[in-house]
Amino acid sequence: MTKRKWMIKNGTFAVLQNEKPVLRGYMVIEDDLITYIGEEQPKVEENMEIIDGTHLFFMPGLMNTHGHTAMSLLRGYGDDLALQVWLQEKMWPMEAKFTADDVYWGTSLSVIEMLKGGTTTFLDMYDHMDQVAAVTEQSGMRGVLTRGVIGLCPPDVQNHKLKEATAFAKDWHGKADGRITTMISPHAPYTCPPDYIEKFVQTAYDLDLPIHTHMSETVTEVEQNVRDYGLRPVAHLQKLGVFSRPALVAHAVHLTDEEIEILATHKVAVSHNPGSNLKLASGVARVPELLKAGVTVSLGTDGPASNNNLDMFEEMRLAALIHKGVSGDPTAVPAVESLRMGTEYGAKSLFLDGVGTLAPGMKADFIALNTDQAHFLPHTDFISHAVYSASAKDVEHVWVDGKQVVKNGICLTLDEEKIRREAQSAFERLLTL
Amino acid sequence: MTKRKWMIKNGTFAVLQNEKPVLRGYMVIEDDLITYIGEEQPKVEENMEIIDGTHLFFMPGLMNTHGHTAMSLLRGYGDDLALQVWLQEKMWPMEAKFTADDVYWGTSLSVIEMLKGGTTTFLDMYDHMDQVAAVTEQSGMRGVLTRGVIGLCPPDVQNHKLKEATAFAKDWHGKADGRITTMISPHAPYTCPPDYIEKFVQTAYDLDLPIHTHMSETVTEVEQNVRDYGLRPVAHLQKLGVFSRPALVAHAVHLTDEEIEILATHKVAVSHNPGSNLKLASGVARVPELLKAGVTVSLGTDGPASNNNLDMFEEMRLAALIHKGVSGDPTAVPAVESLRMGTEYGAKSLFLDGVGTLAPGMKADFIALNTDQAHFLPHTDFISHAVYSASAKDVEHVWVDGKQVVKNGICLTLDEEKIRREAQSAFERLLTL
Repeated sequence: MTKRKWMIKNGTFAVLQNEKPVLRGYMVIEDDLITYIGEEQPKVEENMEIIDGTHLFFMPGLMNTHGHTAMSLLRGYGDDLALQVWLQEKMWPMEAKFTADDVYWGTSLSVIEMLKGGTTTFLDMYDHMDQVAAVTEQSGMRGVLTRGVIGLCPPDVQNHKLKEATAFAKDWHGKADGRITTMISPHAPYTCPPDYIEKFVQTAYDLDLPIHTHMSETVTEVEQNVRDYGLRPVAHLQKLGVFSRPALVAHAVHLTDEEIEILATHKVAVSHNPGSNLKLASGVARVPELLKAGVTVSLGTDGPASNNNLDMFEEMRLAALIHKGVSGDPTAVPAVESLRMGTEYGAKSLFLDGVGTLAPGMKADFIALNTDQAHFLPHTDFISHAVYSASAKDVEHVWVDGKQVVKNGICLTLDEEKIRREAQSAFERLLTL
Repeated sequence: MTKRKWMIKNGTFAVLQNEKPVLRGYMVIEDDLITYIGEEQPKVEENMEIIDGTHLFFMPGLMNTHGHTAMSLLRGYGDDLALQVWLQEKMWPMEAKFTADDVYWGTSLSVIEMLKGGTTTFLDMYDHMDQVAAVTEQSGMRGVLTRGVIGLCPPDVQNHKLKEATAFAKDWHGKADGRITTMISPHAPYTCPPDYIEKFVQTAYDLDLPIHTHMSETVTEVEQNVRDYGLRPVAHLQKLGVFSRPALVAHAVHLTDEEIEILATHKVAVSHNPGSNLKLASGVARVPELLKAGVTVSLGTDGPASNNNLDMFEEMRLAALIHKGVSGDPTAVPAVESLRMGTEYGAKSLFLDGVGTLAPGMKADFIALNTDQAHFLPHTDFISHAVYSASAKDVEHVWVDGKQVVKNGICLTLDEEKIRREAQSAFERLLTL
């Protein structure tokens, strides 16, 4: 088969890994890979399609490293409530009624929002994961998928759930032309007994997969961990072997200096979810200290019911803003660091090689922002504009694995109108049950 | 002259002042006023234009109560720097070079961003205010304009500046069909000697105008005030008579309980600027306590060089999010309160009667959001969606004083392409000086 080879000319590109993080020039894509990026114009070959990038800013696709995307069906259904009221009276009763179909449409609604907003890779931890995988496959998006298991149930149910999680991880890892990878996920230390978590660690060894879990999101759960197991969550998970695997923990809001050290030593990655942590009043994670200690920190939206959107530009902006305001240091988390958290460090957190930067040999997962807009002027510093001024809706085009999935703001792979209709119906049906 | 009378049918309307803050139904507009809003269909008169509002959410126009809009020319020119470095090495040297033309194009750039993003009223405190007034008049926007005066200069320069500020306030108050009102603005207690501030108070009495000033933005300036005058800024301004006038203070980040009391007693309004306060690492204002004490708190973007956009949806979201995260209370600043801060309380802060809510007899300053979008689904709670999920770019139509100024996302009153070109040239020229 002939390779498809095409070139962007006169573009402005984010090359955050370089000393000069913005480059004006050319990028060549061959099938699913970037093969050239630089200031010099490469040789134009016969039949090479050339796209003019004059009014576009090209960035690596954004990587959303923690979420429960089907919860979009509950967006706006209960806000501004105390955490336990929100969970016990709003989320859990509704989620208990979710069918495979609901997960399909809820995930589709989220995937279309994410793709149009420039997110090219998402991690999803939920139930009915076959549905999530099906949507991922159809959409052309890259997905790191994992059945999140709550273990507060009798042993036979525990075993059934673990088997289901294992089968899913095994069946789907490497599928959809390699766009789908999987992880192993005990939900959290406070929802899984220690011996159950150890079984997940064993499974992760058996399948050679990374582990993903919630950790230290609230003060309450940290205190409960100490009460129940005599240890704070980090030492507890370390003891259970979780950090002997490649591991990504979500939230990590409440950490001691010693815990930050342990995460750094074991190369545990952290998915920082600023929007959700603020909205649920969980607190402000110690991101500057984590970064200083060498921990890989990436960004996640969490579920759309606690955010309430999936705009990763907003998470990058929050990450760049709140740590300045809270620490009193205006140099905390500069724009370029925040953009790396949303891209390169995201890839690292998800244990994905070959995505997250624009460089030769990397997968062609990238997005283009329209720079001809009032809030991107003057054309001073596109890194600053992308972090401090942009939003999801500034994204014009999106490519994943070399294929265009969003063009002029329209998703090419999914039927948006149908998805919006079906998601609304699904929510209305859930209300009647 | 015949009145223009038209109706929106099947719309969803934010009526935040009512017990039920969302209404589905009809709104009638006659010239510059709303004359009906309700669930019942009013009588359709001959020649009455009818607009279908089925897929639109109508809200009062947003009110940006503090800013320096011409600073859009410096957007992205210096971020992530210590405050004094940013001011002394980046902002002040460039601003010193600003000509009237620069202010004209910088303001135009900001006004077009604000209008397209659903802001119908803005406060501007800057220099070359005749230019700002000219842009306001042309754009159809509502503006509360004030020459911000720094008084660290010899008496003759002080006098000249005061005269200029007075003349501007007198000449433009009530102009542009009443869309322009003015205020009197000593820049801040730390940039104006006490006797100079007293002259501004006298001027405010003479012209019967409100006072606007910066106050207690940083810890440093509060400490300096105590050192220089033996009082914290609130007591200092109170002593100088500032609060004997209708007054709006910007920032008010660092306040004691006693200071909050004084502001409440004197009905001093506060313009909360969460984005700018975070970005400049000034801190987090005590908004829940201010609201609880009965202080009118509204929202402002501050200048676009410290934000870096003029998206008031983002300020509403930040106001609803950060106070939850910092206080640990998920019920702090609920969505509906944040939306009122962005609209109704904005009008109150600016001492404008007849704008800020959708109700009969109010000015027809309102906006329409397109609800047929993934991030507005399901259609659970549009107040929640507007605060937690929306952004400037969800705004489809904007009306000010009954006249449409944005239609399908395009500004009808200003030439956007020309403004973008001129703003870029102005910035490039400033760089060469």
